[in-house]
Amino acid sequence: MQVVIISIGDELVLGQTVDTNSAWIAATLIEQGISVAQHVTVSDDLAAITRTIQEEVTRADWLILTGGLGPTDDDLTREALAEACGRPLEIDPVALDRLERFFTDRGRTMPERNRKQAMVPRGHKSLENPHGTAPGLLVTINGCRIAAMPGVPAEMRPMLRNLVLPRLTADQPDGPGFILTSRINTFGWGESDVGRRLGTLMDRKRNPRVGTTISDGIVAVRIRSEASDRTVAEAHLEATAEEIESCLNPMAFGRDDQTLEGALLTILLERNLKLVTAESCTGGGLGEMITRIPGSSAAYNGGWICYSNEMKIQQLGIDPEIILLHGAVSEPVASAMAMRSLELGHADLALAVTGVAGPEGGTEQKPVGTIWMALAIREAQAPPTVWTAQSHLSGDRLLNRDRAAKTAMQMARLALIGQPLELLSWVRIGGPSRSVTWPA
Amino acid sequence: MQVVIISIGDELVLGQTVDTNSAWIAATLIEQGISVAQHVTVSDDLAAITRTIQEEVTRADWLILTGGLGPTDDDLTREALAEACGRPLEIDPVALDRLERFFTDRGRTMPERNRKQAMVPRGHKSLENPHGTAPGLLVTINGCRIAAMPGVPAEMRPMLRNLVLPRLTADQPDGPGFILTSRINTFGWGESDVGRRLGTLMDRKRNPRVGTTISDGIVAVRIRSEASDRTVAEAHLEATAEEIESCLNPMAFGRDDQTLEGALLTILLERNLKLVTAESCTGGGLGEMITRIPGSSAAYNGGWICYSNEMKIQQLGIDPEIILLHGAVSEPVASAMAMRSLELGHADLALAVTGVAGPEGGTEQKPVGTIWMALAIREAQAPPTVWTAQSHLSGDRLLNRDRAAKTAMQMARLALIGQPLELLSWVRIGGPSRSVTWPA
Repeated sequence: MQVVIISIGDELVLGQTVDTNSAWIAATLIEQGISVAQHVTVSDDLAAITRTIQEEVTRADWLILTGGLGPTDDDLTREALAEACGRPLEIDPVALDRLERFFTDRGRTMPERNRKQAMVPRGHKSLENPHGTAPGLLVTINGCRIAAMPGVPAEMRPMLRNLVLPRLTADQPDGPGFILTSRINTFGWGESDVGRRLGTLMDRKRNPRVGTTISDGIVAVRIRSEASDRTVAEAHLEATAEEIESCLNPMAFGRDDQTLEGALLTILLERNLKLVTAESCTGGGLGEMITRIPGSSAAYNGGWICYSNEMKIQQLGIDPEIILLHGAVSEPVASAMAMRSLELGHADLALAVTGVAGPEGGTEQKPVGTIWMALAIREAQAPPTVWTAQSHLSGDRLLNRDRAAKTAMQMARLALIGQPLELLSWVRIGGPSRSVTWPA
Repeated sequence: MQVVIISIGDELVLGQTVDTNSAWIAATLIEQGISVAQHVTVSDDLAAITRTIQEEVTRADWLILTGGLGPTDDDLTREALAEACGRPLEIDPVALDRLERFFTDRGRTMPERNRKQAMVPRGHKSLENPHGTAPGLLVTINGCRIAAMPGVPAEMRPMLRNLVLPRLTADQPDGPGFILTSRINTFGWGESDVGRRLGTLMDRKRNPRVGTTISDGIVAVRIRSEASDRTVAEAHLEATAEEIESCLNPMAFGRDDQTLEGALLTILLERNLKLVTAESCTGGGLGEMITRIPGSSAAYNGGWICYSNEMKIQQLGIDPEIILLHGAVSEPVASAMAMRSLELGHADLALAVTGVAGPEGGTEQKPVGTIWMALAIREAQAPPTVWTAQSHLSGDRLLNRDRAAKTAMQMARLALIGQPLELLSWVRIGGPSRSVTWPA
């Protein structure tokens, strides 16, 4: 089956926006064993969109379009589809009704110009969009099926998953067979380190095939299992996944869409433990990651963003002497931030981060990328245990902040599953220490 | 002049890698007044690459190819170009000499498999690559010029700048001439609202051309100015930009790469004001956004992530009675969070957010997407002023959190520039109120 993705938008063709939709759609289709033949990006130009559609329908079985379904004059995908199939546009009453309700549900009246979003080429269908005003379209030209979806990822992704994928997979011919994919996610070892540990598992001729990808510090091991029978493909996939996990234990934290914050949260919820955070250079990013997960409120009390020294002193009660003596970016301050937040937040675990994220603020002793993390865990009948970790990151501001937050979460996860924190390859671990580094 | 970009690589077509080269090339060409008509992405397949080249040369003046010039068996751009122009590949002695030196300079002998990288279709030219082993190619087919470059950005970028761009600009006919682009960023009005306000500015025949794009809630108005003379193109761009800004005032917060957090921070820094945050449902995301900007520590003291009621009560000192009476997601709690954090954090401004981000936790009275935001501003010789805003968002968890954080920042920005907060179209604004809703 030939599938072509067409992205529509001046901002994409002119390079003002990087097209991430095409890659996401292709990767999502691959998971279903459907491989894409080509991507095309065209501008908001009626003639260009129409011509591209007319050309591609002659050789493809499916076209996946994104973009150009908005309410403004430069949204022309609807018009191009009508022209390509030679049918006039007319109002779809069901789509119009949904559109009007979209606005009234929000206490507004639908602007007149949004009306055109309810139009479809005569005899063709619209696709419901519960997340925005742009319904999708489903058109067939000379036997080639065309799904047109909005360009906004939050609207496009559920539409592809719920309305387009089922139709695509139904069109898939039997054989050559089943392709199943999975991903083992790891954090804490570099990509070459992961590759070395996987050894012959990464042989290019192996089935299931194994490869690695790094994205935002997460090294994912991709598995692609191919067999004529689904059960066989599944069994091979599972066997390889387990082999990979045993090679990459304990840094492998989950499969497929599992995130590091999700993995940590699962352990906290299982043991009914409460977490708090104290953040300086991450500025709330650690809390933000943890609370991305629905239900995180059952294990996360909250935290302090103590971006200024005054906040560290007045709100967390850090001894100003420690800051004066060691600087805000130091092991004693990280340690005190974790200990104080553990106590004030009545929590079982506390994570603290303080560092020089950059691009300014570095010194010879503490260059940009110097970040201290601390983990405090409450113990029964004893003072809390504190671990500290120092990293020397070398990325830009956002990268340094992201890796610091993830390192802190992996520290907590490793400690909770009884694994040595020293396994983290790019940090120097201090502790566990029971010495309390703030005035009692 | 018609320019088409062709990216070659299985990893791009299968969505394992996002193609950032095409956007970078298009943006670099636009700076020289050359606008790209289309991007095409094809896999490492000899027939597919050859066919795409043959089709595109019939309508383009220039093709810019990236990828597929490596030494391995899946690098096929060279072979496809030879086939498309009907000439055999032969060794370019200069390229071979450079390639051998590339290895000997690094104390290695050239592996035999790299030899093929020195091959060019007979009668055509190679392009020097000082940064890697893959020379580029310059081929002409039926008057259409083709530059093939490696896919590695660090090798492709200097090759485009130093060897391809000068040839491209030399081919540019006199006129149309220069194309300049810019972007006006807005937040707070929907895309159709923005379109309506722009009116005839969005006429497709207008020069400079104006279009809109929405991304993460930010509606950007793109401008594309074309003229035979750079000064004229610049003057038209600036005039249109100012016209757009006056239509979209005060929601337009900046041009090009300016972010909402950056715009807010600029005002805070200019007036030497200090901001704090108190976050419930955004979980630190508001602080994270503000601290993305280098230098934000001069205007942002920090904040509280009071995810649990206990944190709201014990750390911010919110009266438990208010929570009991109105619920944690309510105007009085949002208002109290802002007022208490303003006081505790010794700040001039405080932003607070509390809401039901979803997917769970919604009730009939407070469905998912119900979010209260509050802004407190310290006044000289008077109690602080508080504004509140209630939104009914309908996205998923991450979208609701993102929009709530941005709404809070736009509220602060509007108040600081003396504009009515009621202009924000999807929220209901309460206040300004001087009534203090927490126990004195």
